[in-house]
Amino acid sequence: MGQHTSAERGAPVGVFDSGVGGLTVAREIMRQLPEERLVYFGDTARVPYGSKSQGTILRFVRQIVRFLETKEVKAIVVACNTASAYALETIEKEIRLPIIGVVKPGARTAAAASRNGRIGVIATDATIGSGLYTQFIQGINPRLQVFGKACPLFVPLVEEGLTHDFVTEEIARRYLKELQEKEIDTLILGCTHYPLLRSLIRGIMGDEVQLVNPAYETALDLRRLLEENGLLSEHAPEGLEKYQYYVSDGAEKFRLFANSILPHEIRTTQVVDIEKY
Amino acid sequence: MGQHTSAERGAPVGVFDSGVGGLTVAREIMRQLPEERLVYFGDTARVPYGSKSQGTILRFVRQIVRFLETKEVKAIVVACNTASAYALETIEKEIRLPIIGVVKPGARTAAAASRNGRIGVIATDATIGSGLYTQFIQGINPRLQVFGKACPLFVPLVEEGLTHDFVTEEIARRYLKELQEKEIDTLILGCTHYPLLRSLIRGIMGDEVQLVNPAYETALDLRRLLEENGLLSEHAPEGLEKYQYYVSDGAEKFRLFANSILPHEIRTTQVVDIEKY
Repeated sequence: MGQHTSAERGAPVGVFDSGVGGLTVAREIMRQLPEERLVYFGDTARVPYGSKSQGTILRFVRQIVRFLETKEVKAIVVACNTASAYALETIEKEIRLPIIGVVKPGARTAAAASRNGRIGVIATDATIGSGLYTQFIQGINPRLQVFGKACPLFVPLVEEGLTHDFVTEEIARRYLKELQEKEIDTLILGCTHYPLLRSLIRGIMGDEVQLVNPAYETALDLRRLLEENGLLSEHAPEGLEKYQYYVSDGAEKFRLFANSILPHEIRTTQVVDIEKY
Repeated sequence: MGQHTSAERGAPVGVFDSGVGGLTVAREIMRQLPEERLVYFGDTARVPYGSKSQGTILRFVRQIVRFLETKEVKAIVVACNTASAYALETIEKEIRLPIIGVVKPGARTAAAASRNGRIGVIATDATIGSGLYTQFIQGINPRLQVFGKACPLFVPLVEEGLTHDFVTEEIARRYLKELQEKEIDTLILGCTHYPLLRSLIRGIMGDEVQLVNPAYETALDLRRLLEENGLLSEHAPEGLEKYQYYVSDGAEKFRLFANSILPHEIRTTQVVDIEKY
C-alpha cells in the first residue's frame, strides 16, 4: 500500500445515487474528508429506484459505474440504499476499483447502538424487500432483532418540500406505528432522503429511540478504504474543480435542490446520457 | 383508404404509458372498440415521467415506438399526458404509423363542455409546464381561460392505494383551492392516474364542476383515426391473443395493479429491455 502516485491519490471519489438523496452522503464526506475531490452522479432520469426490481437496478448501476470510470475516479461510494442492497455485492466482483455502499455501515452503527437488541429499519420497498439490513445486522450479532418497514411516500413528500407538514407527519405516524409497538430502541434511516425528515421522525419516535443516519459511518468507511488502498488525498487539490455534479436529467432542478442541502453553492451541473454507458 | 388487407386491419393497436396509469385509457378503448386487439406497454423501469425533461421523455418515447413497431401495431395511442405533451408533435413527423395522444381529445372535450369559459387542468409538472392543454383549448376558442395546476403527489398516493384517504383529500384540497377560487366549471383530469381519484375530486369540487377524463374522447378519436385509415377491425380476432401486456420492469406488480383496474384478468406480462430499442 502507499505505492500510488500523488496523481492517483489526487483523483476524485465517485459518489452516486438514484437522484438527489445521495447528496446527504456527499455532504458528510465533504465534512469528514475535506481534502477529497468528488464526482457526484444523480440518476434523475430514472429516479426512483426504490420501487424497481433487482435486475433493472443492477443494469442502471453498471451503466453508472462505467460512466464514473470515464471520470477516472479512484473509488466509488454507492450513496443509495436500494442500489447498495441490490447491486453492490455483484458489482464489487466485476470491477477493480474499491467500492462501498451505505447499508453495511448503517447496519454496523445500529448493531453497536442498540441496548435492548431491537432495531427498526425504514427504507424503500426494494431495500426492505432485499432483507440486507437484517442480514448484515444479524451477521454481526444473531440475537439482534430487526424490524423493517417500507415507507414509499417519504421520497415524494420530501421532493415536494413537505418535510415539516402535518400530512407528512400523519403518513409517518402510520408507517412508524408498528415499529413503536415492537419497542425498538434504534431506528435506521435506510434511505438517503430520510435524514431530511429527521426532526419529524424524532418527534414521533421520541428521544429514547436513537436515529441512525448511515451517511456518517459511510464517510468513516470511505476514509478507511482509501487509507487501506493508499489512496487518501493528502491535501486539497489546486487548480482542479473540487466537486463535479452530473445528472441524467433536469440539471437546473437538481442544482436548486442541491443548493438547499449542501453547504456550498453548486454553479454547474452537467447532463449525461447514462443509457449510452 | 379501405385498401388494407384483413390481416392489416386485424393487427393490434399499440397503447403505452409511463406505467400503469394508461390502463385507464386501455380500459376505455376495450369498452368502445371491443373488436380491437391491443399491445400495452408500461415503462415501469423509468416511471414517473411527470418530473422529467422534454429531451429525456422524447428519448424514452422513441424507444417505446420502436418496440411497438416490432409488434407490428397498426396505430399507436400515447396513453400518457406527459408523453403526449412533450413528444407527440415530434414523433408523429418521424413515423408512418397513425398516432394519437390524450391531450388533444381532452382539450376538445373540455372546450365543448365549459359554459362559463373557465377551465381547470390538473396534471404532472411536465404536462402543466408544457402549456399544451392551454394551447389546444385556446386554439379551439381563444376566449376560453385555462388554469393549470401541477399535482405531483397524486401519482404516488394512488400507487400507494390511498385513493379514499383523508391524507389524499387534504393534499387534494390544497392543490384544488386555487382552481376553486378561479371559479372554473370544467376540470380536466390531465394525468391517466387521476380518474382513480375521481370521487374524491368530485367531493371537493362539487357537482357543478364537470370532470373531464380524456380517455373517453381518446377512444372515440382512435375509432375515427382507424376508420379514416381503413384500419378498423371488423370482428374480434380468433386464435390470436387479444390483449398483450409488456413492461420494462416489475411484471408481477404491474399484473396485480392491472387486475384491480381492468374488467378482465391479466394472466401474463412480459418484461422488455426497453433501452435496447
